[in-house]
Amino acid sequence: MRIVALAGGIGGARFLRGLKLAAPDAEITVIGNTGDDIILFGLQVCPDLDTVMYTLGGGIHEEQGWGRAGETFAVKEELAAYGVEPQWFGLGDRDFATHIVRTQMLNAGYPLSAVTEALCHRWRPGVRLIPMTDDRVETHVVIEDDRGRRAVHFQEWWVRLRAGVPAQDIVLVGADDAKPAPGVLDAIAEADVVLLPPSNPVVSVGTILRIPGIREALTGKTVVGVSPIIGGAPVRGMADACLTAIGVETSAQAVAELYGSPLLDGWLVAEEDAGVSVEGVVTRARPLLMTDERAAADIARAALDLADEIRGVTA
Amino acid sequence: MRIVALAGGIGGARFLRGLKLAAPDAEITVIGNTGDDIILFGLQVCPDLDTVMYTLGGGIHEEQGWGRAGETFAVKEELAAYGVEPQWFGLGDRDFATHIVRTQMLNAGYPLSAVTEALCHRWRPGVRLIPMTDDRVETHVVIEDDRGRRAVHFQEWWVRLRAGVPAQDIVLVGADDAKPAPGVLDAIAEADVVLLPPSNPVVSVGTILRIPGIREALTGKTVVGVSPIIGGAPVRGMADACLTAIGVETSAQAVAELYGSPLLDGWLVAEEDAGVSVEGVVTRARPLLMTDERAAADIARAALDLADEIRGVTA
Repeated sequence: MRIVALAGGIGGARFLRGLKLAAPDAEITVIGNTGDDIILFGLQVCPDLDTVMYTLGGGIHEEQGWGRAGETFAVKEELAAYGVEPQWFGLGDRDFATHIVRTQMLNAGYPLSAVTEALCHRWRPGVRLIPMTDDRVETHVVIEDDRGRRAVHFQEWWVRLRAGVPAQDIVLVGADDAKPAPGVLDAIAEADVVLLPPSNPVVSVGTILRIPGIREALTGKTVVGVSPIIGGAPVRGMADACLTAIGVETSAQAVAELYGSPLLDGWLVAEEDAGVSVEGVVTRARPLLMTDERAAADIARAALDLADEIRGVTA
Repeated sequence: MRIVALAGGIGGARFLRGLKLAAPDAEITVIGNTGDDIILFGLQVCPDLDTVMYTLGGGIHEEQGWGRAGETFAVKEELAAYGVEPQWFGLGDRDFATHIVRTQMLNAGYPLSAVTEALCHRWRPGVRLIPMTDDRVETHVVIEDDRGRRAVHFQEWWVRLRAGVPAQDIVLVGADDAKPAPGVLDAIAEADVVLLPPSNPVVSVGTILRIPGIREALTGKTVVGVSPIIGGAPVRGMADACLTAIGVETSAQAVAELYGSPLLDGWLVAEEDAGVSVEGVVTRARPLLMTDERAAADIARAALDLADEIRGVTA
């Protein structure tokens, strides 16, 4: 079976780890969000790609959900001693090495998709990880504070401001001119099932769907999503702040409507959201907390079962 | 008093630390060698500038003579895990931060001299440290091994091969078109004394003298050198391999002749080399081992005394 998943960071990565357990023989292609990529100290940082790579490759800081296990912070301390900004983004020494290798390859002319493949030679994540695009696409957030109305990089809003200043708008700079990375459209075309993990529906999955060609390629495919919202609140992260920014309620119902039919065919919600109903979308309710790998695998299995049901496949 | 010193790495830096003690009120300008600079992992590494900066700024690994005290190697280990070459150059985590800041500033368009000044804002070395040039100049070494006759970067010969393969020639790529960095010629013009510390006479001091305009600017100045060779052997490092490569004997006499009159006015040698004699050069013999800061200060004091004697200044 061929599976494509569109993934953001922590939630997506944990779901994918469960998916590998649930479908050990499947060929899994992960289309990763790069909208929250940021150039720091001249180095290209790809938080979501790295979270997927580290999580599936066994290098993740498990409790934190992002960054490397056993991390140290000598480089960050030194940069601070030099007075270099920004100091609010916590890059560890091991993580720095990834960004150094990536930046060196990008500067040598390799596209991000080839760089990601090279990094995965080491991590062997057990999936094919492709960035949504090789082009520069950056999520910016429009805020208004004592310095006036202005757009800041998503990471500045998310990490430095902890999404504490209301987002008035979320803008994807460069998206209109971006092309899907090589392999993205082919993987979708060949997929039996497309999964939308419980990633942020606005700045992760929503961003991937904004790359011209990707949403169109999904037409006619069996697409099953897992709600990142349980009982009116995000499972983790600050998806509510992102949904509010684009005028969408923080509910499993509203997110299903945001994805909408005909894109979405199946929608897995938590038991407390069993009443969700969207025309053209088959909804199932079940426990959705990814408390451990086993729980994540059960959720992934349920998503695949729902896809089979929609496709009329008998298990 | 205004002093200019042309400096390489470890030997130069230790001499300069002594010089600061010997002449606490002097205005000292250090013209640093950049011929052994190397771009590693896309980052600009300036070993000699950093050794001077760390040594005078109190951050040096004291026993090793280069690199940072209290260093860790997480980034290097990770780069090796990615299989990235070269793995023979030992950059520590703290050191990496310096190269990251430098590279970011260089890529933003600042010349190396401005970057070095910015880095020194943190280290406060107590001297004005200027790279010999803002242009790219690289020392390459011609060797012949089982892969044939070829030129390798100086660091590959020095660090990876430990100068174990005979150098057939030493070439300074880019030197002919290089210009002295801003401030270099002015500092020389205003100097009361110019010192040549016991740095490598070929790939450190010799390199600086190869930048067009610098040797000419020294004409008419009082130039005093400290021999890096004691009793036929380099005090440290592998200066003998460099001298042999350019057909010069490893002796205090031969190095004095290499610098030569009219460049050199005074030459400080070790007691065992008391017989050295070069026409036009005033030679003095004294203990030259920089066993500690105090010993280095005594040597620097002797160099300044010799300069005073040559200039006809009474102490």
